[in-house]
Amino acid sequence: MIVTIDLNCDLGESFGAYEIGNDAEVIRYISSANVACGFHAGDPRVMERTVALAKKYGVAVGAHVGYPDRVGFGRREMSLSYAEVKSDVLYQIGALAAFCRAAEVSLRHVKPHGALYNMAGKDVVLAQAIAEAVAAFDKTLLVFAQPGSQLAEAARGTGLRVVNEVFADRAYRADGSLVSRSVPGAVIENPEEVVARVLDMVIRRKVVTLDGQEITVDPETICVHGDNPGALALVVAIRERLQAAGVKISPP
Amino acid sequence: MIVTIDLNCDLGESFGAYEIGNDAEVIRYISSANVACGFHAGDPRVMERTVALAKKYGVAVGAHVGYPDRVGFGRREMSLSYAEVKSDVLYQIGALAAFCRAAEVSLRHVKPHGALYNMAGKDVVLAQAIAEAVAAFDKTLLVFAQPGSQLAEAARGTGLRVVNEVFADRAYRADGSLVSRSVPGAVIENPEEVVARVLDMVIRRKVVTLDGQEITVDPETICVHGDNPGALALVVAIRERLQAAGVKISPP
Amino acid sequence: MIVTIDLNCDLGESFGAYEIGNDAEVIRYISSANVACGFHAGDPRVMERTVALAKKYGVAVGAHVGYPDRVGFGRREMSLSYAEVKSDVLYQIGALAAFCRAAEVSLRHVKPHGALYNMAGKDVVLAQAIAEAVAAFDKTLLVFAQPGSQLAEAARGTGLRVVNEVFADRAYRADGSLVSRSVPGAVIENPEEVVARVLDMVIRRKVVTLDGQEITVDPETICVHGDNPGALALVVAIRERLQAAGVKISPP
Amino acid sequence: MIVTIDLNCDLGESFGAYEIGNDAEVIRYISSANVACGFHAGDPRVMERTVALAKKYGVAVGAHVGYPDRVGFGRREMSLSYAEVKSDVLYQIGALAAFCRAAEVSLRHVKPHGALYNMAGKDVVLAQAIAEAVAAFDKTLLVFAQPGSQLAEAARGTGLRVVNEVFADRAYRADGSLVSRSVPGAVIENPEEVVARVLDMVIRRKVVTLDGQEITVDPETICVHGDNPGALALVVAIRERLQAAGVKISPP
Repeated sequence: MIVTIDLNCDLGESFGAYEIGNDAEVIRYISSANVACGFHAGDPRVMERTVALAKKYGVAVGAHVGYPDRVGFGRREMSLSYAEVKSDVLYQIGALAAFCRAAEVSLRHVKPHGALYNMAGKDVVLAQAIAEAVAAFDKTLLVFAQPGSQLAEAARGTGLRVVNEVFADRAYRADGSLVSRSVPGAVIENPEEVVARVLDMVIRRKVVTLDGQEITVDPETICVHGDNPGALALVVAIRERLQAAGVKISPP
Repeated sequence: MIVTIDLNCDLGESFGAYEIGNDAEVIRYISSANVACGFHAGDPRVMERTVALAKKYGVAVGAHVGYPDRVGFGRREMSLSYAEVKSDVLYQIGALAAFCRAAEVSLRHVKPHGALYNMAGKDVVLAQAIAEAVAAFDKTLLVFAQPGSQLAEAARGTGLRVVNEVFADRAYRADGSLVSRSVPGAVIENPEEVVARVLDMVIRRKVVTLDGQEITVDPETICVHGDNPGALALVVAIRERLQAAGVKISPP
Repeated sequence: MIVTIDLNCDLGESFGAYEIGNDAEVIRYISSANVACGFHAGDPRVMERTVALAKKYGVAVGAHVGYPDRVGFGRREMSLSYAEVKSDVLYQIGALAAFCRAAEVSLRHVKPHGALYNMAGKDVVLAQAIAEAVAAFDKTLLVFAQPGSQLAEAARGTGLRVVNEVFADRAYRADGSLVSRSVPGAVIENPEEVVARVLDMVIRRKVVTLDGQEITVDPETICVHGDNPGALALVVAIRERLQAAGVKISPP
Repeated sequence: MIVTIDLNCDLGESFGAYEIGNDAEVIRYISSANVACGFHAGDPRVMERTVALAKKYGVAVGAHVGYPDRVGFGRREMSLSYAEVKSDVLYQIGALAAFCRAAEVSLRHVKPHGALYNMAGKDVVLAQAIAEAVAAFDKTLLVFAQPGSQLAEAARGTGLRVVNEVFADRAYRADGSLVSRSVPGAVIENPEEVVARVLDMVIRRKVVTLDGQEITVDPETICVHGDNPGALALVVAIRERLQAAGVKISPP
C-alpha cells in the first residue's frame, strides 16, 4: 500500500512593495498552497502571481482566508458576528477564485489563517460561518482543519469534505489538540526532531505528546513553514525523507 | 416594433455603519444594478444584501469596479499600471461573483466607477486592462461603456459585448462625448427636461447638444441616480414616462 | 452653590463621502466634543472641519481614540497588545492635536471609543496602555472614564485627571456599572425618563438602578447622542432642563 | 572654513509583520531620518521604534509624508485637492510629532515622499498645500526640497526655511532638474561614480549633467538610500569619503 500525504504551506503573503516569504523556492517542495486573499496579507498582483506559480509547479491552490487586519497580519483575535465572518470569507474565496479562473486552475481548498483558524477551532458559531461560506460558494471545496476541531465538525455538518491537518513543528496534548504557544516546548525547534515526528505521524500514524504519551493521528495534510532559510531547509528535508520512505506527496 | 431600454443605477455603496443611497427604493424602478465591490465603496455585508435585493426585484447585477481609494470614493484619478488595474478589476469581479453564486444569481455586467470610468474612456492602456480582466473572468459578461470611448473599443476588441450607455442628466457635445462637469450647463437640473431628453434619446434616438445641434444616439442603457429624494423621484418619472410611451424596461 | 456639568457627544464620525451624525446642530447644545481620529471613523478633512466647528461654538475638543477597524466602526473587540494599544492611541492623539494646533484650539481630553472604551473599563493592561499614551503626550489632558473602571484607575495612577462619566440613556446596576446592552431595559428609550434621570443624577447625585435601588453617583460629564433626529431633540431637552434648574453646562 | 552637509535617508517604512530596509544599520551613518507616517508606509509601532532609534544615534527626525496609498507605497500619482493634501499632511505630521513628543525628541523637518514629492516639485497648488500644512503646524520646521522646485518656492513663500536637497545617485539636466527615471542613465549605478559625484557636489559645488555640462549646485542635504546591502555600503562609503575630505556631517 502506498501512503500519500499532502504538504501545505502559506504563500502569497507579500503586499505591495513588501516581500514576505520565499514563495518561488518553497513551492517546489509542497503540494498545496494556502494563498492569502488580501485581508490579512496579499494583494491582487501577489494573488495573480502566486496562482501562476502554483500552476507552474502543479501545486493545489487554496484560499487562506483571514481577518480584515493587515497591520496585525490576521494574528489578533477579533469578535466578528456570524454574518460578518461568513461574508468576509465568501468575499475572499471569490476574489481568489477569479485569479484561478483566469489562470484556468482549480480552487481546491479553504483554510482559515491565524487568529481565525485558532478561534474557529473552538468557536462553533465562527466555525459554522466559515463552513457555510465555503459551502455556499462550492460544495466540492475541501476544508483544512484540525481533527476534532469545531471547524472540522461544522464543515462536515455542512456536507464538506474535511482534510485532517497536523503541524510539523508543534507539540500535541493527549487529546490530540495543540499545546498552546505560550507553553515551553510547544514549538519544536530541532529540525531533525521535526522530520522524525513527521515521518512517525505519516507512516506509523503515531505522535508522542508533550507529556510523553504516544497517541494515534490520522494526518492527510501537514502544515509546514517556508518563510525563512531554516524553514525552507526543513521543508526540503521533510519532502526528501518522506519520499525516501516511499511516501507519495500529493494534494488531497 | 417594441423599443427596449435598460435603466442602470449605482447601488451597494454603503460601508459598515455608513449608509449611502436609497437602495431598497430605487431598485424597484431600475433594471440593472452596478454593485460596488469593496474598493471605492461597499463591503462584504453590503454586497451580500445588495445581491439579495437585486434577486428579489429581478434586477440584473453588475460589478461596479473602482480604484482602491475608499476615502476618495473612487473619484480621484490615480496612475495605476496595466497590471495593477487588471488585477484590481479581476479581484473585485471575483468577490462580487461569489455573492452572486451563493445567491444563485447571474453576474451580468461590469461597469467601472468614477475616475476609473472617466479615465478608461480616454486611456487605451487602462481600457485594455479592464477589458482583459473582464474577458479573463468571463467572456459573456457585458461591459457598460460610452459609445466611442476607449473602453468600448477595448472591450469589443477583446470579444466582449458592449452596452451603449447614455446619461439621463448630462449635456452632450456634437461628437457625442459628455460636456465636462466644470462647464456650465453640463448637468441638467430641471427634472422635466431630463425626462424629456431621455424619451427623445430612447424613442427618437436624438439628443440636442449643449451648442444646440441635434445628434443621433443609440442608447442601450441609461445611467440614473437615486441617492437623494429628488433623484429617486426622477427615476420614478423616467420609468413611468418610458412605460407610458410603450418602451419596455429590461436588462440588456 | 452652582452645580456645573459637562455634556459630551461623539462628533466627527463622517468619512469621505459618507456622512454620519448631525454635527452642525448637536454642537450647539454640548460642551465637549469627542472627535474621531481616523481609525474607527473620521478622516483628516472631517477632523479639521470638526475642530473648526468646536472652536466656533466654544466646545472643548477631545480625542475619541478607537480600534483600527473602520468597517466595524471600532465596535468589535480586538485583542491588541499593550504596545499596540499604546502606540495606536498616541498616533491618534497626535493626529488630532495637529488640527487643534493649526486652529489654535486646545486639545482637552481623551475618551476611548466603542469596544476600546468597554474593554478598557475591565482590562487593566489595556487601561494602562491608554493611560500611558495620554500621559506620554500631555499630562494635563483629561481622561473621560466611568467611575470605578480600570481606565479611571490607570489614568489616576499615571497622574492624569479623570472626569467621571455617566450615560444619559443607560441603566445602571447597584455597583454603579452599566447594565449590558443585551439585557432588557439596558437602554432607556423614553425621552422624558432620560431627561428626568439626568436631572436626578446631576442635582440629587442619585440614580435608580435597574433593580430599583437608589445609588449615589458623582457625574462630571454626561454622554449624550445626537446622531438621529430624536437624539438631537433629547440633547436639546437635557440642556434646557438642566439650565432651567440652574445647572451650568461647561467643559470640565 | 568647514563644509557641512546633511545625509538624509528614508526610514521607518516597515509595516506590521512586513520589514523593509535596514534601519538599525543605516541610521549609524546618516544625520537626518525621513520617517514614514502610516499613509504610504510605516505604522504606529514602527514610528515609535524609529524615533527611538533616531534619538539613540542623535539623528534628526523628519516627517516623510505621503499619499494614502499603502499598496502602491505612495509611488502612484493621485489627483487630490488642495484641501485633501493639506489635511493629509497635517494629520501625518501630527501623528509623528506625538511620538517625538513622547520620546522628548524634536521634529525637525518635513519631506514629501514618492509621487507626492515629485508632483509637488511641479504643481504649485500641491506645493502650496504642503507648505501651508507645515507652516500651520510649526513655522520652524524645515522643508527638504529640490532647488527651483515649486515646493521650495511655496515653502519659502510661507516663511518656512527650505533645505536644498540633491540626490546621490541621480543624473541632472542643465537646468538643475533631475533626469526622469525613464531616460537611460538617469540613475547612476556605479558606486565609485556616485561617491565621486557627491564629493564634487559638496566640495566643489559642481556636478556634470547627463549631457556633459558642468553646473553649479548648492546642496544642504543629500538623499541616500540604505534599503539593500549595496546601498548600505554606499552610504558608508559616502560618509567616510566626506569625512576624510574634512566635511562635517550634521543635520541642517
